Amino acid sequence: MTTLTETLQEIVVANRILAREDVVDAFGHISVRHPANPDHYLMARSRSPELVTMGDIMEFRLTGEIVGDDDRKPYAERHIHGAIFERRPDVYSVVHNHSHAIIPFGVTQTPLRPLMHVTGVIGKRVPVWDIEDNFGGTSLLVTNMDQGRDLAKKMGDARVVLMRGHGCAIAAESIKAAALTAVYTQVNAKLQLQAMPLGDVKYLSAEEIELTPETLVGPLAMERAWEFFARRAIDGEF
Amino acid sequence: MTTLTETLQEIVVANRILAREDVVDAFGHISVRHPANPDHYLMARSRSPELVTMGDIMEFRLTGEIVGDDDRKPYAERHIHGAIFERRPDVYSVVHNHSHAIIPFGVTQTPLRPLMHVTGVIGKRVPVWDIEDNFGGTSLLVTNMDQGRDLAKKMGDARVVLMRGHGCAIAAESIKAAALTAVYTQVNAKLQLQAMPLGDVKYLSAEEIELTPETLVGPLAMERAWEFFARRAIDGEF
Amino acid sequence: MTTLTETLQEIVVANRILAREDVVDAFGHISVRHPANPDHYLMARSRSPELVTMGDIMEFRLTGEIVGDDDRKPYAERHIHGAIFERRPDVYSVVHNHSHAIIPFGVTQTPLRPLMHVTGVIGKRVPVWDIEDNFGGTSLLVTNMDQGRDLAKKMGDARVVLMRGHGCAIAAESIKAAALTAVYTQVNAKLQLQAMPLGDVKYLSAEEIELTPETLVGPLAMERAWEFFARRAIDGEF
Amino acid sequence: MTTLTETLQEIVVANRILAREDVVDAFGHISVRHPANPDHYLMARSRSPELVTMGDIMEFRLTGEIVGDDDRKPYAERHIHGAIFERRPDVYSVVHNHSHAIIPFGVTQTPLRPLMHVTGVIGKRVPVWDIEDNFGGTSLLVTNMDQGRDLAKKMGDARVVLMRGHGCAIAAESIKAAALTAVYTQVNAKLQLQAMPLGDVKYLSAEEIELTPETLVGPLAMERAWEFFARRAIDGEF
Repeated sequence: MTTLTETLQEIVVANRILAREDVVDAFGHISVRHPANPDHYLMARSRSPELVTMGDIMEFRLTGEIVGDDDRKPYAERHIHGAIFERRPDVYSVVHNHSHAIIPFGVTQTPLRPLMHVTGVIGKRVPVWDIEDNFGGTSLLVTNMDQGRDLAKKMGDARVVLMRGHGCAIAAESIKAAALTAVYTQVNAKLQLQAMPLGDVKYLSAEEIELTPETLVGPLAMERAWEFFARRAIDGEF
Repeated sequence: MTTLTETLQEIVVANRILAREDVVDAFGHISVRHPANPDHYLMARSRSPELVTMGDIMEFRLTGEIVGDDDRKPYAERHIHGAIFERRPDVYSVVHNHSHAIIPFGVTQTPLRPLMHVTGVIGKRVPVWDIEDNFGGTSLLVTNMDQGRDLAKKMGDARVVLMRGHGCAIAAESIKAAALTAVYTQVNAKLQLQAMPLGDVKYLSAEEIELTPETLVGPLAMERAWEFFARRAIDGEF
Repeated sequence: MTTLTETLQEIVVANRILAREDVVDAFGHISVRHPANPDHYLMARSRSPELVTMGDIMEFRLTGEIVGDDDRKPYAERHIHGAIFERRPDVYSVVHNHSHAIIPFGVTQTPLRPLMHVTGVIGKRVPVWDIEDNFGGTSLLVTNMDQGRDLAKKMGDARVVLMRGHGCAIAAESIKAAALTAVYTQVNAKLQLQAMPLGDVKYLSAEEIELTPETLVGPLAMERAWEFFARRAIDGEF
Repeated sequence: MTTLTETLQEIVVANRILAREDVVDAFGHISVRHPANPDHYLMARSRSPELVTMGDIMEFRLTGEIVGDDDRKPYAERHIHGAIFERRPDVYSVVHNHSHAIIPFGVTQTPLRPLMHVTGVIGKRVPVWDIEDNFGGTSLLVTNMDQGRDLAKKMGDARVVLMRGHGCAIAAESIKAAALTAVYTQVNAKLQLQAMPLGDVKYLSAEEIELTPETLVGPLAMERAWEFFARRAIDGEF
């Protein structure tokens, strides 16, 4: 069974990977359910992901309250995470990011769709949540549980949900799967931007979308990819 | 109250950040009002921003004359800064840059418009100033106060003004806000270039443009972003 | 004559070059026929190319069985290599990669065609193999010899074959030629993506495609290019 | 007056700058007239530009013969340089490169035109030379003086000439001007590729093209830009 220390180490590496791959910049975050208590989750205090260390991790209830005597500043948008954990018992880790490549798919009518085996993990349907629909004019930030729950509802059982003019949220069964799915969601967005001007695109079939996730988050592929991205993030450029 | 030394340190960091993020290359500059004298401003001598140190900072009157016994070469285009400070008492820091991503919006009829929460800071209206309109054939450089004032007038109360075939000027209430606005103006330009081929773009609403600046230059977001970009600029690649 | 040690050194350098030029990321591989036994080939165990060292190289029969007492995990997709070696006695080295630039040409009807002298090496015809045609719904991975042979048949006597929604395979007469062809296939894909929006493209003529390969894989050009890419891959950024 | 040693140092720095800015990769070269003998020119032996040192520089007659007892391998395409020096007494330095951004303008009917002050240096007219017009099917390399002279004739009095499916040649009055013009020709190509999809582009006027070169190769701008690019090329990333 995963210990708390292993989980903390993994979440720090995941923060670094997301920073190194430009999935996050000054903003964005990744969380994980507490390994001993599924009603709590762990996430860094409010700072940029590539600066996060084990000592920065805080503990939260799903409704966002800080656990313990911890007066550090949390991320204002932590309700994205809590609301998804609340609705989706199958989810163990959540990423929120502003990856530049995916923004265009949230502000236009073009759906994000997988076109490559290692991006099949993003699934058949990537819904777009527009905060304006139910909350009117806002700063676009998700700052309370009502907004978080509305986002989680739009996400449904998908692995990726886009947030109009803001970014996306990604839900997966492990820290590694969440981080790699975030990286390859960005890859698919870039590929779709490049491919669409060339003509009609052949996307993955429904059957391929069932079968391809193993090529990224299956046991063999995931360890190889994790080793690659972790080395690159932590050792710097080769 | 901010001391002169703190201001000088901050302006050097801002120069490095703009260089690291490719907002400036060999050309471009950032200035700040003198903290003890709002009729003077501080800016580096004529050299590329990523090479600027505290010892390179010179002091100018708003009309561009060098203050003190300083025979170093100033930037020829310092009048962009002086003219904006002169017209806009609310402005404490000005950036001029040639960011490649924003050039296309100055030479075509496509307006630059915010489409993401952290770029709402660029405002409802980004005017385009064409030096040819009032000055005919030139080298496109702003080399005197007449040209600077004409630019400042076109800018009006906006935060960003594009300069046709040249670059842009950015005005903000602090060095940090000016530098971050310059970085995210570039981000918005890249996103717009990517999104437009996908179909009609949903830009931020007027109300969102009122509410989103806090997500970049509000007290919490700004410190986090500044920490991120400063570390990246000064420590090199992670 | 090339010794085994020289071959092993060269295949490690080739792995690093492909990683440094972003032709491969966590996935992708390069193989070489055994210099003393053309019915065997050499390729790394299952790990990301930029992490490969001489000790990681394993030996295989063309049909994919591991030679010797070696219980390390091989690449699941090694049959791409074996099947091409089996069909093409002229081929000494094979690359499989997921280069992002080439993916769009596998999922649309736009053929990849050489438009520059150093990319003439990709040849007159770059076929596209779609695993769905003969194998229906799959994970898109080539996991057995039937699939590998179907791919090799589609490749025919070409140097490059695209794999729909997956990547490509490249076959050449030496490790250096295979690696450089992989790099410049990616260059051509990028150039074509850029050039097509500007209007009708003048591609290389049939005669030019005969004559230009010497500009990349001719004896003089190849050594210069190899020195460049090897130094860049092994010494890091200049 | 410039000494031979100063010239050799400058040509080495220019080689490094062109490599650092990705104007050249494994291929491409820069030459300079011999400071004491305008009928000779200096250029590296055949190796990739970022590896060039002072000891690699060879001396040639304008017609391409090696001067002195030097049996090292010269660039096959040195006739590009000799033919331009022969036709253009005003030219002191020549660059040949395969910059990816400019290739699309050589293979389509879209002319490369300056749209920004610092790129005004590329001039009113950038001709495109197609080797096929007078030499039929070739490897596209310029391998003899007849081909070099045909290219120089097409160039006429321009500063930049594109070579279809191959790259470009750049001629200027100094090493620094040649290198910086090569860098900003690439910048203009990138900007034009970005701007054209946004609608009609306002290019520089004829008068602006007369006046803007001082913003890059005028005495003040050129030294600042040279300091920037040289530091970046030699010290590595900041």
